[in-house]
Amino acid sequence: MNGECDGKCNSCSQVNECTDPQKEKWEQEQRLKQKISKIKHKIAVISGKGGVGKSTVTVNLAMAFAIYKGANKVGILDADIHGPTVPKMLGLKGQKLQANPTGISPVTGPSGIKVVSMDFLLPNDAAPVIWRGPLKMKAIQQFLSDITWGELDFLFVDLPPGTGDEPLSVMQLIPDMDGVVIVTIPSEVSQNVVKKAVTFARRLGVPVIGIVENMSGFICPECGAKVDIFKVGGGQKIAQDLSVPFLGSIPIDPEICSDSDKGTPFIAEHPNSPATKAFTEIVKKIENFLQHHALKEEVAK
Amino acid sequence: MNGECDGKCNSCSQVNECTDPQKEKWEQEQRLKQKISKIKHKIAVISGKGGVGKSTVTVNLAMAFAIYKGANKVGILDADIHGPTVPKMLGLKGQKLQANPTGISPVTGPSGIKVVSMDFLLPNDAAPVIWRGPLKMKAIQQFLSDITWGELDFLFVDLPPGTGDEPLSVMQLIPDMDGVVIVTIPSEVSQNVVKKAVTFARRLGVPVIGIVENMSGFICPECGAKVDIFKVGGGQKIAQDLSVPFLGSIPIDPEICSDSDKGTPFIAEHPNSPATKAFTEIVKKIENFLQHHALKEEVAK
Repeated sequence: MNGECDGKCNSCSQVNECTDPQKEKWEQEQRLKQKISKIKHKIAVISGKGGVGKSTVTVNLAMAFAIYKGANKVGILDADIHGPTVPKMLGLKGQKLQANPTGISPVTGPSGIKVVSMDFLLPNDAAPVIWRGPLKMKAIQQFLSDITWGELDFLFVDLPPGTGDEPLSVMQLIPDMDGVVIVTIPSEVSQNVVKKAVTFARRLGVPVIGIVENMSGFICPECGAKVDIFKVGGGQKIAQDLSVPFLGSIPIDPEICSDSDKGTPFIAEHPNSPATKAFTEIVKKIENFLQHHALKEEVAK
Repeated sequence: MNGECDGKCNSCSQVNECTDPQKEKWEQEQRLKQKISKIKHKIAVISGKGGVGKSTVTVNLAMAFAIYKGANKVGILDADIHGPTVPKMLGLKGQKLQANPTGISPVTGPSGIKVVSMDFLLPNDAAPVIWRGPLKMKAIQQFLSDITWGELDFLFVDLPPGTGDEPLSVMQLIPDMDGVVIVTIPSEVSQNVVKKAVTFARRLGVPVIGIVENMSGFICPECGAKVDIFKVGGGQKIAQDLSVPFLGSIPIDPEICSDSDKGTPFIAEHPNSPATKAFTEIVKKIENFLQHHALKEEVAK
């Protein structure tokens, strides 16, 4: 069909009742483009290695932008099909996507953040999604094309770790992604995997906004001693080595885990904590990147 | 070909020069069965969520069994195609799989542990493996069918998080898996994903050996205060809720991270630490499970 579709099916020449899969595919692509065009900035949050706090960083970044930008302007697409955790972290467990006359709506979380996650489609917590790649690609495509996201300033896409089906699908489905934020912990084992994430983004032609070092150092709440559980400084070092911006370090704080479990985003609960200050600095750097990037595109025109 | 192959190709009737893909597939399956039949116990280490220390647990369990069982009797298949970390943790970075007259050999690590990982095939650390599911399935199949594992008492398979292509492939390729060890951290967010891992194993008919709670509590090395960074007890609770055995809790110890980075397995370096004692208890429980399981199969015959 190659974009020249006149609405008529190539196989049967019928317009309304046609079920030709090619036409369906083309229509879905058009819907996806139309939905995505209403979202100003698309940012993917990735990590080479799992469990570095990628979802925690996504949720708190989205929250920071939502507080700053106003309600209903920020969305999160939880693209982790097998282990979606964003709903739990935003206190949205048990919610479902709702169909209404204009389409299927995202679930609205704190500060009006619009959230779409596989979790909203599962019957219960114990249900695993035992899917191979092509089905996951299809699900993510539908999340983008068939959900009424509306006009958004920011969409954060929380991707599962690695460089496999889901990250590839998202990068291919959203060709005008502003960039990726890469989350890591300071350990060397994690650093090795960060290099892969940077090369992945570069190969796909997506700008690297920068690296966030999470779980960076720990201050004992009893005695104030600083203990580097997963070491410190690895994020900054790897950013230098790979010539990508370093966005900041977020210290380990047991309250972050406890808030995630309670479903209350940390930065809203603890506005004066060192971790919240770190998030605020990261937000500023992301904004600078976006402005700079827009300027560069303007000049290039 | 359905197992009735006489070595002749269905398409061309030639024996030696035949390149019929069906015959190749059948031959590979035969090689896989033959290789796997020489391995006494196959145990997969899984987690719903990433970054819970699954690879650290795999490496230290394998090490414990290798010390106990003697050299060259334990293997690790690092089935994390996108973010392989086992070689780094065992000090095997930069090693390559070697071809010799009898086939391709695993790399030999400390205490004679035989290791196969995607990492041994990559040109450098920065090279990401940007593969979708079918290619990953093929790679894992070859790791099992074309590597000269030899006679092993134990093969530990370190799986990437989730319930997608790699875990599915491994479970389908090794139908007589003894069972799975599920690793989690105590946080509620992780607990929700553990439920999925247990259902996944049950659906595929693989026994759950038990749950390990990693990063359980933290004792400040300066003042001795106990700080529950990711909470404590979640693993035991979820094991009870799901009626699966609880294998033990491994406390957070900054030395574990530091040893992983150095490539020296923790339990060999710190034989008297609380974390090593926890590993030893877990090993005993796994052995009990295997004996009990063997007995049950004997009775069933």
